[in-house]
This record gives sequence, structure tokens and C-alpha cells, in this order.
Amino acid sequence: MRKTYLATALLVAVATMTTPAQAADATSVVATTVIPEAQYPRVHPDGKAEFRLHAPGAKDVKVDICGKKYDMTRDADGNWTATTDPLVVGFHYYFLLVDGVSVIDPASEAFYGCGRMSGGIEIPESTEASAYYTFNPETRHGQVRECQYFSKTENAARRCFIYTPAEYETSGDKRYPVLYLQHGMGEDERGWHQQGMMANILDNQIAAGKCEPMIVVMDYGNCGYIHGARKGEKRDDFGATFTPILLNDIIPYIDSTFRTKTDRDNRAMAGLSWGGHQTLQTTLYNLDKFAHIGTFSGALFFDPAKIKELYGGVFADAGSFNSRVKTLFLGIGSEENFGTEKISAALTEAGINNTLYISPGTHHEWLTWRRCLNEFLPLIFK
Amino acid sequence: MRKTYLATALLVAVATMTTPAQAADATSVVATTVIPEAQYPRVHPDGKAEFRLHAPGAKDVKVDICGKKYDMTRDADGNWTATTDPLVVGFHYYFLLVDGVSVIDPASEAFYGCGRMSGGIEIPESTEASAYYTFNPETRHGQVRECQYFSKTENAARRCFIYTPAEYETSGDKRYPVLYLQHGMGEDERGWHQQGMMANILDNQIAAGKCEPMIVVMDYGNCGYIHGARKGEKRDDFGATFTPILLNDIIPYIDSTFRTKTDRDNRAMAGLSWGGHQTLQTTLYNLDKFAHIGTFSGALFFDPAKIKELYGGVFADAGSFNSRVKTLFLGIGSEENFGTEKISAALTEAGINNTLYISPGTHHEWLTWRRCLNEFLPLIFK
Repeated sequence: MRKTYLATALLVAVATMTTPAQAADATSVVATTVIPEAQYPRVHPDGKAEFRLHAPGAKDVKVDICGKKYDMTRDADGNWTATTDPLVVGFHYYFLLVDGVSVIDPASEAFYGCGRMSGGIEIPESTEASAYYTFNPETRHGQVRECQYFSKTENAARRCFIYTPAEYETSGDKRYPVLYLQHGMGEDERGWHQQGMMANILDNQIAAGKCEPMIVVMDYGNCGYIHGARKGEKRDDFGATFTPILLNDIIPYIDSTFRTKTDRDNRAMAGLSWGGHQTLQTTLYNLDKFAHIGTFSGALFFDPAKIKELYGGVFADAGSFNSRVKTLFLGIGSEENFGTEKISAALTEAGINNTLYISPGTHHEWLTWRRCLNEFLPLIFK
Repeated sequence: MRKTYLATALLVAVATMTTPAQAADATSVVATTVIPEAQYPRVHPDGKAEFRLHAPGAKDVKVDICGKKYDMTRDADGNWTATTDPLVVGFHYYFLLVDGVSVIDPASEAFYGCGRMSGGIEIPESTEASAYYTFNPETRHGQVRECQYFSKTENAARRCFIYTPAEYETSGDKRYPVLYLQHGMGEDERGWHQQGMMANILDNQIAAGKCEPMIVVMDYGNCGYIHGARKGEKRDDFGATFTPILLNDIIPYIDSTFRTKTDRDNRAMAGLSWGGHQTLQTTLYNLDKFAHIGTFSGALFFDPAKIKELYGGVFADAGSFNSRVKTLFLGIGSEENFGTEKISAALTEAGINNTLYISPGTHHEWLTWRRCLNEFLPLIFK
């Protein structure tokens, strides 16, 4: 639940007091995403990240982050270093290129993204801006439970993560609404919890009375590799196997294992990027089961002009749609250019109630999705 | 709880049906420890592992596994491959050496071990031999809950994992005994759960009525980096900061959050390798709090001849010790040569009740520790 790297960072902070980093300037700090005792990568006050790798036998080492490759420079001892341009705040996947091979920085915690285990670095925001996704020692904390269940649809054991609010332990027979929350392409069921800091976001909102105490289910959307990795698979097939698993295996498992409210008014689904695509594919054909819908940078590649023909014509009858769907949320980063604003406008023009949220200054990245979740939670289950 | 790689493996098995691996012989199978869609590493029926990396720009690539480095051979397309000697069954950390830089195989899931994120591969045992740590669709399954709490001792947020048995969800006010279970040097609170498959072991024993339903707590022993990584730290200091955190922060947090039995007869501690050392350091000076003690390949580097002087002389009065300590378990792999047999013999000679378990044919590795846990569980809380 707590970001893996949160405690790591604190431990490293303690370590730093006893063993000052060599050659690092006093104003930079060790990234919160490192393994215990690592002194690099470091983040400078202006958002530049400084990387270091001991690789005396390598010919060429680069850092690959935020769509740009930075050459690293070798010193006489075989230590390679590079400092990036100022990076956007939030979480970024990154790799080191060692003689052309893309690898995880040995100093980094590992995160499932980009269709593989990846390095990651958190470029911190201000204390105020990051408060909503930061662990608060003064509040009560929910749990993220890793569960195994058997999927008859897939004929396989599967894993899911379930957030339960702090009060769940002591609330007797009280039952809770459920949000099914999906990751994006090349990610898996760990993403929201490790990169997205969803538990802190939920804890903080519930403690402040901003959202209803709820259960959040995070499962694998069968799109954890990059599209095209499986031969012959078309875009329309990508992750399509997830919907029957969700409907026939996951929801029954959750409703029989946890104290859930099982009516449609108390069930939501949201997803980021390709998970947003999957959310619409799933919910709009199954409105008997879902009343709250969210897409965060959703991969919604359709023509807004044809909105009334989409999803079996569900948007053609606005009165019927609005009476059934209590929340339709479309979030997007201001720098993404995914066309989400046009889709929202077309929905509004068709009479479909929807909420558009634009995250200021962010791209297709986890900070956008943390903000989207933070905006979405207060709207649902009201 | 379920091993990360269990579901992954099953997904990959499905994928393999549609996209046969190129150039892989028909008798080898994709390791269960890979990321989705990966076709390497593969395991052959004789226990040889076959690795592959696309690295056209590298000069030299090796696999570093089980204490041996294997040269990989480059083909015309820049794919490097190597097949190892037959490997011992069980879980092994491994690295690829790319022009001398030790990195995680991009095709591998990542595991915290060796003081950093590492690659890992499971060399399968027979179905019968592995049944005790394998997910069984026919039984009920517990949960592994990731929790955050604030440690006043460390003045930092910390993470722990708590296994709760399947019945915990529906057993009302029933309270449970607690086992505190520690990882080894260079590992962290994820080890028992991800590499050790502890949830499957507990699920299977509880379902078979072999052990008491219990809560298991896995926290970070402050020894997750390799000894000596922190300047000036002596061996005796290593991980010593963990004991006051366990006694003053973790146990109170667990007892106030979960339905635990809080008397000493219902509290156990066990640990592997350095965690075994920490277990004796913690429990033997705090027998008012613990009645069951286990070391699995414990790093117990003392002179058996001086047994009665150790740990404040706790072994000097056998009658008193035996009346207080219900379980003292010492497990070891037959190939380890850690001297555990001599310690057990010295304890027995001093009149101290203890159980020695020798895992046949295994070294200082996770298969030893899975077996030790499996042997330890039926002894405690009886």
C-alpha cells in the first residue's frame, strides 16, 4: 500500500546522516525510489536528476528518461555520471543503456511498466502539492491485500490487490461500495499501488471526509505487455480477454470474500490509458452492473462526431443514459493532446452528463493519474 | 501472497500455445519467474537453465547464477545465449553481466535480494515435492496485507506484510497466535512472500489441519543491504536496530490492528540466515514475550562449547528454559556446513529441548527455508 520507496527513502535519509554521499553537492537529495543505502540517483532543487553507474568495462552508457537519452561521462575509476535537464514533477520510468542494452539501474527499486520491470524515479513536488498522495502519520491507514483466486475463465490462478479502508477492521457488518481500478498498457496490477500511491490518496480523502469509505480492487488487465508483443494480436483484441474475467470471476470473488455492496449504484470502474479504453468497453455494455465510470488519459480513439453510434448506441438516448450512469468522468493531462476535451464536448452536446478534468501541466504519466483519481473519488457513491 | 510469478507463468503458458518460442527445443519450458510474454529463460528437464539476451552492441555477456559465471555466445543478430549446468531445484537469484555490469535480465521478474533488486529463476521440483508451496485451487486462501505504520523508534513510516488465514474474514471475534518471520541479509520484507511462497505454505498446512491458523508478520529487519555497505558498521551492529522497533512499534501495532492473542505462548519468532541471528538476539533476551523460536540456516557464529555463557546465560538453567520455551527449532540445509548440528548437539547436551531439521541436498537458499518453515509450523502454538 505505502509506496515501496517511501520507507526506503526514509531509511536512506537516516543512512545519509551517517554516511554523506561522496562528491554529491549539498543541495541535492537521494531520490525516494532507490534501494537501501544507495546514494544515487539524486534530485536537484531545480528538478534535474543525477545518475551514476560503476561500469569500468562499458564503452557507452546512457540514461533513457522522459523520452530523451543523456550520454553519461566516465571518470578514471569507471564511474559514469549524467545530470538531466529539469524533469517534470512526479514519477517517471527510466532505463540505463549499457552498450546499447536497456537495463534497470542497480540503484533503483523496480516497477512493472513499459511491459517489463523498469527503473523509476520520483521528482518531488512541493509539500503542499504532494500532500494528497503522501503518507500522513496523523491519520488512520487502510491496507492493500494481495489475494489469489482461481479464474475459471482463464483456467489459471490470478492475483489481485484489494484496498480496504482503515475502518474495515472494526466496522462489524458494515458493507462498502467497490471501485475496480485498472492500470495502463505495459503495466500490471501493482501499478496503482506502487506508482500511483492510491492507498495514500484513499487514506487522505477518507480521513478528510472527502470521499466515501470504499473498497478498491486492482487486477491485471491482460495488457501488461506492449501491444504487438503477442503475434497476430490486433489492437481491438488487446486486453479484451479481461472483461469476461472481471464479470465472471473477479466480481463474484470480491463479493463473496469482502463485505461489499453489490448493487450497480455501489460499483464503479475506472482505468488509466488503455485501462480507460477497457473501462468503457466493459461498463458501457454492462450498465446493469456499473453506475460510475472514469477514464484517466483514456485511450479513446474514436470520432467524436459519431458519438451516438458508439458502444451499441448507448449515448443515443441521453435521458436513459443519465438516469443510469451517476458518474461519467474524463480526465486528461493538459499536455497530452489525446482529444479528450473534444469527446467531452461531444458528449455534452449529445446531452450526456459528464465531468471533464484537465490536470495542469502534466503529460501521459502517473502524476496525471494520481490527480485524476483524487478528482474522481469525491464524485462517486454519493 | 501468491508468488508474483505464478500467475505470470500461467499467462505465459497460455501465450506459448499461440506463439511457439523460436529455436527453443520442445522439452524445455519457460521459467515461471519471467515477465508476461517472455520466452526466456527456459528450464530443461535436467534442470539446466537457458538464457537469452538481445545485445548487439555488447562485447561480452555472461550469466551469473549459483556462484558460477557462464559465458554467453553471440549469434549474427546480436542475440546472446547460454545454457547452464543442471541447477539445484528451487529459487535462485541471478544476474546478467553486460560488459562487466551486473544487471537484471530484462525478461525476469525482479526480487529484492543480494542487497538490490535481482533477477530470479525457479527450477521446478516434481509436482509431489513442490505441492506444499504450490497454490491449490481446491483450498481456501489467506491474504497478505501490506500495511503502513509509523515507527516512533525510527521516526519514519515503515511497511510490513501480514498474512491472515482464510477464515479470518468470517471468524468474528476469534483471536489468533502470531509468528514474526524474518528475511535474511540483503533481503527485505517482501522475501518470504515473493521468494519463500509462505502464503501457499500456510494455506496448505492450515487446510490440511497440520498447523494452527495463525497470523504471520513480515517486516524489514534493517539488514537489507549487504553487511559493510554502511561505513563503520560492525558485524554486531548489523540489523541490531530492528529489535527495539519490533518490540516497541511493530508488536503494539499488530496487536492493536489485528485480532491477535497477545500472551507469550501465542507469539513466535523465526528468521532465515541473518534473520535467524536476529531471532535469537531478540527472543532470548525477551522470553517474557516469546515462547516459540526458530532459526532457518541461522547465522549463529558462536562456539558451541560456550553455550551456557551465551545470551546472558539463558541456556545455563535447562529446567527454567524448557519450562518457558515451548519450541526451539534449528533448521539447516545438508550442504551448508554452518555448524548447526553441533549447536543443536551442544544444546541437547546442556539439557535444552530443541528440534534439529536438516533439509536434504539443499544449500543456503530459499528451498531450504521453505522446507524449514513447513517443518516449523506444525510445532508451534500447540
